[in-house]
Amino acid sequence: MENNILLKGFVKIRPEYEIDQSNYAKINNTIQYQAYLKENNNKENIEFKDLNYKNINHYMCKSDRIKKRAFFIPDMLNEDPNLRIISNTNHHHNGANLKERMEVFEKISLKLFNEFYHEENYRPDIICFTTSSGYIAPSPVQTFLSQKGWCNTNVFQVSHTGCYGAFPSINIAAGQLSYRLLSEGKALSAEIVHIESNFLHYNPSQHDTAQLINHSLFGDGAIKYKVEIESEHNRNNALKLIYTFDKILPNTTDIVKFWISDYSFHNVMSKHLADVVIENIDDYLKELCNKAMINYDDMKENAVFALHPGGPKILDGITEKLNLKPWQVENSYWVLENYGNMASATLPHVLERIIKDDKLKGKYVIAIGMSPGLTLGSAIFKRL
Amino acid sequence: MENNILLKGFVKIRPEYEIDQSNYAKINNTIQYQAYLKENNNKENIEFKDLNYKNINHYMCKSDRIKKRAFFIPDMLNEDPNLRIISNTNHHHNGANLKERMEVFEKISLKLFNEFYHEENYRPDIICFTTSSGYIAPSPVQTFLSQKGWCNTNVFQVSHTGCYGAFPSINIAAGQLSYRLLSEGKALSAEIVHIESNFLHYNPSQHDTAQLINHSLFGDGAIKYKVEIESEHNRNNALKLIYTFDKILPNTTDIVKFWISDYSFHNVMSKHLADVVIENIDDYLKELCNKAMINYDDMKENAVFALHPGGPKILDGITEKLNLKPWQVENSYWVLENYGNMASATLPHVLERIIKDDKLKGKYVIAIGMSPGLTLGSAIFKRL
Repeated sequence: MENNILLKGFVKIRPEYEIDQSNYAKINNTIQYQAYLKENNNKENIEFKDLNYKNINHYMCKSDRIKKRAFFIPDMLNEDPNLRIISNTNHHHNGANLKERMEVFEKISLKLFNEFYHEENYRPDIICFTTSSGYIAPSPVQTFLSQKGWCNTNVFQVSHTGCYGAFPSINIAAGQLSYRLLSEGKALSAEIVHIESNFLHYNPSQHDTAQLINHSLFGDGAIKYKVEIESEHNRNNALKLIYTFDKILPNTTDIVKFWISDYSFHNVMSKHLADVVIENIDDYLKELCNKAMINYDDMKENAVFALHPGGPKILDGITEKLNLKPWQVENSYWVLENYGNMASATLPHVLERIIKDDKLKGKYVIAIGMSPGLTLGSAIFKRL
Repeated sequence: MENNILLKGFVKIRPEYEIDQSNYAKINNTIQYQAYLKENNNKENIEFKDLNYKNINHYMCKSDRIKKRAFFIPDMLNEDPNLRIISNTNHHHNGANLKERMEVFEKISLKLFNEFYHEENYRPDIICFTTSSGYIAPSPVQTFLSQKGWCNTNVFQVSHTGCYGAFPSINIAAGQLSYRLLSEGKALSAEIVHIESNFLHYNPSQHDTAQLINHSLFGDGAIKYKVEIESEHNRNNALKLIYTFDKILPNTTDIVKFWISDYSFHNVMSKHLADVVIENIDDYLKELCNKAMINYDDMKENAVFALHPGGPKILDGITEKLNLKPWQVENSYWVLENYGNMASATLPHVLERIIKDDKLKGKYVIAIGMSPGLTLGSAIFKRL
């Protein structure tokens, strides 16, 4: 089974403010203690400070698994609250309120859209903007298009779908190209833009276990890529889409929750998340291969795996369960180690590396991600 | 130009709690005054109360234009704060906080999904859930599918796009059907479900002009419909999709704003909104007809118009500007008069009436909606 949709032209923009994971516990504890003092009328509590530091060190993702992460705002580089954008604890122990965070999101996103399309003088027919970091209307993509004068570009938005946002986005883009090809005989151009500023939702006064783990895993990221109809001119260094498949795992609605609260978006991942994914991955892949009419054993042996680098437990667990070899998963591990979990932007960063690696030419690529539901999403590509 | 996508099988669920527009000023003022007292330590201020009542009466959409509206929660029927769900002013003058409102949204939506699919024993391949009233993950559609055991249904979500949400949703569904037809040769089944509970975002302590107008215009609504590939068996009582077209109007990013704040989603429409739409509608429709290769003058004379009933000014203005006859717009007016502006659910309610009206068989239908950007969205159908 095949179709004629290609992904290519991956361009990423790395965030300006990078921290070394080995510095993370100290700076996070400094900020959280400043929030504690603000909340408690500046009454010192060294016991709290020491215990929180111990907890951060205990629960955080260690620096042998994530070496560094980067953010679009400078908060994690500044002990001085006044130099921080959304975690200025001089104003409130929770930092900025939701409206203020959404305004920062708008500013970050508009800057990135302008940077992404700075040198482009063609107008894409379709832009699919994918994020779970902020919602504001007009959306930054609409404001950018309006300012640029690209008024006839058709906008789609994939919001609040968490880490697996690339799958609905790829489906939407592939769908639009197919639909316009069938109805008008035209091969349109589509682009998918992911902007995730997870740090925007850092709340310095939340230091329960789940948040301490989260704060240590997530980084910011932005990446765009083209979705095109295959022709004789564009089939080099591309991923040809073979099949996509979503499935909700039964009885897992509580495993990942992602909601909107007064001071930030709030994400809680159960400690069972990795176990549930690992338990189901084999049957899920068999169903995927069966539907795509591809031999499952061949795939396990010979395909490149673009696993969503949500955290070390998921990567290690899937690799072990499926008995994958290092070359099959090295790009997934590399992205986790160097960028952290960038929500929906993460998987495209893995795909970008796969397209740059010429020794993978001709291989099948299996991309797998997860979203609340618990929904497993996947796509099979062929690396051209 | 034509394609083979049909919309049909419209099913709506009317909200339980209906108010007569002629009672609206009194109950709204009662609630807003209770909020005022809560905010001001119960210090009576009859001058404020009288002035606010005068303002509500002055700015509200009058009962000759909207006769009644209905809501999924009973707040507008209860002078007793304790009987109100999100505007219980005994707790806080702003009513419920955002997290609590999102939880009510989840509850309302889950109930509606169960009602929509109560008697259905087939599983749609695709559900596109369209709302600008609440975002929570897992989404109510994912939770419903998980509970129902429909784990292989593919979910798309159209969020935060405001009133014109039907257009991206129809495009996404048409795209998925086309894509799967091209790649697998299969005619899948898709459904679009709109749930809008605008009243969820009522904040009793906001009584600026823009909010007084908004509070008087919006109602709640829920509707679903099928999107299918045309075959010889399904082409009765359907809308055949001919063309869709989105355009951002230049220099209009400030005309409609829709953001997330601490207590609710917040929507501000400029008083120039209707003027901007009316000023551009003629050129926009010419461009649409040109692209769809349909004669513009014929269209203006003979098509049914499904205009988004955002408010009386927009309906009156477009009707007058295009010189439309009453039969061409009567369904749009009817929906405004009886249901109010139900955000993205409104246009499908107009289409539902057009499908029920057999004298419109064979006519072209032009649906037009608007969204922040300012984006004008449209679709041309043929009523089969």
